[in-house]
Amino acid sequence: MELIDGNAIAESVLTQIAAEVAKISGRRPAVAFVRVGEDPASVSYVAKKQKTAAQVGMTSRLEIFPESMTQADLLAKIDSLNRDPQVDGILVQSPLPKHMDETAVFNHVHADKDVDGFNTLNIGKLVQEDPSGFVACTPAGIVELIRRSKVETDGRHVVVVGRSLIVGKPVGLLLLQKGLPGNATVTFCHSRTRDLPAIARTADILIAAIGRPRFITADMVKEGSTVIDVGINRVPDGSKKSGYRIVGDVDFDAVAPRTARITPVPGGVGPMTVAMLMSNTLKAWKKRHG
Amino acid sequence: MELIDGNAIAESVLTQIAAEVAKISGRRPAVAFVRVGEDPASVSYVAKKQKTAAQVGMTSRLEIFPESMTQADLLAKIDSLNRDPQVDGILVQSPLPKHMDETAVFNHVHADKDVDGFNTLNIGKLVQEDPSGFVACTPAGIVELIRRSKVETDGRHVVVVGRSLIVGKPVGLLLLQKGLPGNATVTFCHSRTRDLPAIARTADILIAAIGRPRFITADMVKEGSTVIDVGINRVPDGSKKSGYRIVGDVDFDAVAPRTARITPVPGGVGPMTVAMLMSNTLKAWKKRHG
Repeated sequence: MELIDGNAIAESVLTQIAAEVAKISGRRPAVAFVRVGEDPASVSYVAKKQKTAAQVGMTSRLEIFPESMTQADLLAKIDSLNRDPQVDGILVQSPLPKHMDETAVFNHVHADKDVDGFNTLNIGKLVQEDPSGFVACTPAGIVELIRRSKVETDGRHVVVVGRSLIVGKPVGLLLLQKGLPGNATVTFCHSRTRDLPAIARTADILIAAIGRPRFITADMVKEGSTVIDVGINRVPDGSKKSGYRIVGDVDFDAVAPRTARITPVPGGVGPMTVAMLMSNTLKAWKKRHG
Repeated sequence: MELIDGNAIAESVLTQIAAEVAKISGRRPAVAFVRVGEDPASVSYVAKKQKTAAQVGMTSRLEIFPESMTQADLLAKIDSLNRDPQVDGILVQSPLPKHMDETAVFNHVHADKDVDGFNTLNIGKLVQEDPSGFVACTPAGIVELIRRSKVETDGRHVVVVGRSLIVGKPVGLLLLQKGLPGNATVTFCHSRTRDLPAIARTADILIAAIGRPRFITADMVKEGSTVIDVGINRVPDGSKKSGYRIVGDVDFDAVAPRTARITPVPGGVGPMTVAMLMSNTLKAWKKRHG
């Protein structure tokens, strides 16, 4: 069993991006973050993204608004970022306050600045296999992990557990695309699936994105397969200062010995998500600079 | 074994649409067909669509252009149909001449008039499970066949053979959606799939959309399953005046006895495609009339 080291792979992606950015004379790629409210996880995620942007030589900006803000006001702020020639990419941090419609807000980000890949047009391009679009960072990061770990996908069976718009559907669609990594046979399972263990056991590559701690147990995993764990779940842990720890959707200790390769949580998919955000921002900059 | 009678189901869809259209006072729903060149199959498909539009009380218009037309001229014609308040839906008949980029042309049809469901925005909405979009007629027709034949999809395993943008991907995505018909476990197979027969044999519902005559043989089909045949293939037949006959992607005679339900070719999915075009045109009319 080999651990897929998301931290190391993300670092090498970021090093390449930093080298490209360093060659830019004139205005560097710039990403604008929009945060509404003070959700502690959001505060921490955005801080991490800003730090990474600085690390690769990009500029970033953070606009913070109160949770009481109206959706109309937020859309107006996004309009002004859409128009701003100094801004290449825009990321509106999820979750938004309950009185807002996230899909409507995310769709308001101009497709050419949609570094989060949540705009309907970019999702359509993914299905159409049109490389001009932006792919959401987590699925793009999973494919990059697979590519750089040299996991074969051609004709192999990928089973995606979870059908979310953010991870499950796009990652399956990416691996179904013509070309490599891609050309996989792809199965989407979810909470309604009958006999999920039997289907999961046929996977050459199992992608767990269902959001339930240690849902994937050893009996669901084929010997010698690759397991990608997208889960980030908090479970109580009295030995931790915070009172909890983070576990994935995979019962790592039991599953890992059966696999050829597996991603840990943390340190697997997570770091790739931030790296792909930087990759998307560089792509957005290139779109604006011909 | 029960035959799924696409002609009868399409007729009942069309009867419902005709009843809705008959209640409209003022301008009836109108669809514009655009045909470039004289491809005999296109001539016949468009004629059939116009005849069906008349049957349900809609108006239709056919614009015919020479094969030598430039793409820029075609886009200008589409612009004018996009602006025309008398036109609810626009269908540009495929295939287009080789010097044109079909995706660019189809995308030029305004998303609100895109009754063919090929616009990137409508494909994105399908992934987002946003019912305001238009779904391509063949996949929408398959789902309607499944709904009206009362085939259970919840938690069942749907295997789609074929990953085309026109049929394979959208029909799988529709059956993966939350709700019914939907909530299926969905597997996409294609030409690169390893051991396709073994995967196909696990299907409760097998959808053949690979474009190869009689590709699906009896050994690929589970006893008691439902088989939907999307193929329309010409094979030589000396006994026919035309010299050919139409067969599906399924080896019907050998497969049918194993199934619980199966669609014939012709008379299965085909008639549903035209019916769903009328359904989409009525939806487009409703969009324009609040």
